[in-house]
Amino acid sequence: MVQQDARLDRIFSALADPTRRQVLVRLGAAPATISDLAEPFAISLTGMKKHVRVLEEAGLVVTEKVGRARQCRLGTERLDDAMAWITFYQRLWERRLDGLDAYFTLRKGTQQ
Amino acid sequence: MVQQDARLDRIFSALADPTRRQVLVRLGAAPATISDLAEPFAISLTGMKKHVRVLEEAGLVVTEKVGRARQCRLGTERLDDAMAWITFYQRLWERRLDGLDAYFTLRKGTQQ
Repeated sequence: MVQQDARLDRIFSALADPTRRQVLVRLGAAPATISDLAEPFAISLTGMKKHVRVLEEAGLVVTEKVGRARQCRLGTERLDDAMAWITFYQRLWERRLDGLDAYFTLRKGTQQ
Repeated sequence: MVQQDARLDRIFSALADPTRRQVLVRLGAAPATISDLAEPFAISLTGMKKHVRVLEEAGLVVTEKVGRARQCRLGTERLDDAMAWITFYQRLWERRLDGLDAYFTLRKGTQQ
């Protein structure tokens, strides 16, 4: 559960920034180097590297050294757990009284 | 767009903490005071107040002064935008997998 918590923390933190969300959108279209990613944002390479590292630590991006550049593409994290969590919250919101029931169903699902 | 970005930033940041996620679960069952919320976490009232303020700023919790206590309940934010964003990312991800699949099918074909 703690491990699961840490993973969700990293995913939600990574998503809590408009530049990082745009980077994911960009990488959804095609892989790109750090320079490619930095260019539309008028951001330094160092700044973009930091954003990419946060995404990488959350599993949302993978990077690979290709020649002198670092190629970035979408990672292996599917956001299923983040989605499950948000769905769960929405259910709470819709059926406040049945909330705990939905929670235990979610817990059961993620622990399988 | 910037306003929308800022809202998503606040929502994802608020969700990026296990205590805050548990508070939402707790409030999904029933409204609670700051003291009620702090108790299971062995956290100070000040610490819990800070967490509740972050959730409140994201629209996930609303609070109301009732006598000497502050009553907290689930807020009006439905997380629809956060959900839409995650759904969009998952589509990107699936499309990427389709791409990889097509790539390996192609490779397999040319190697025969």
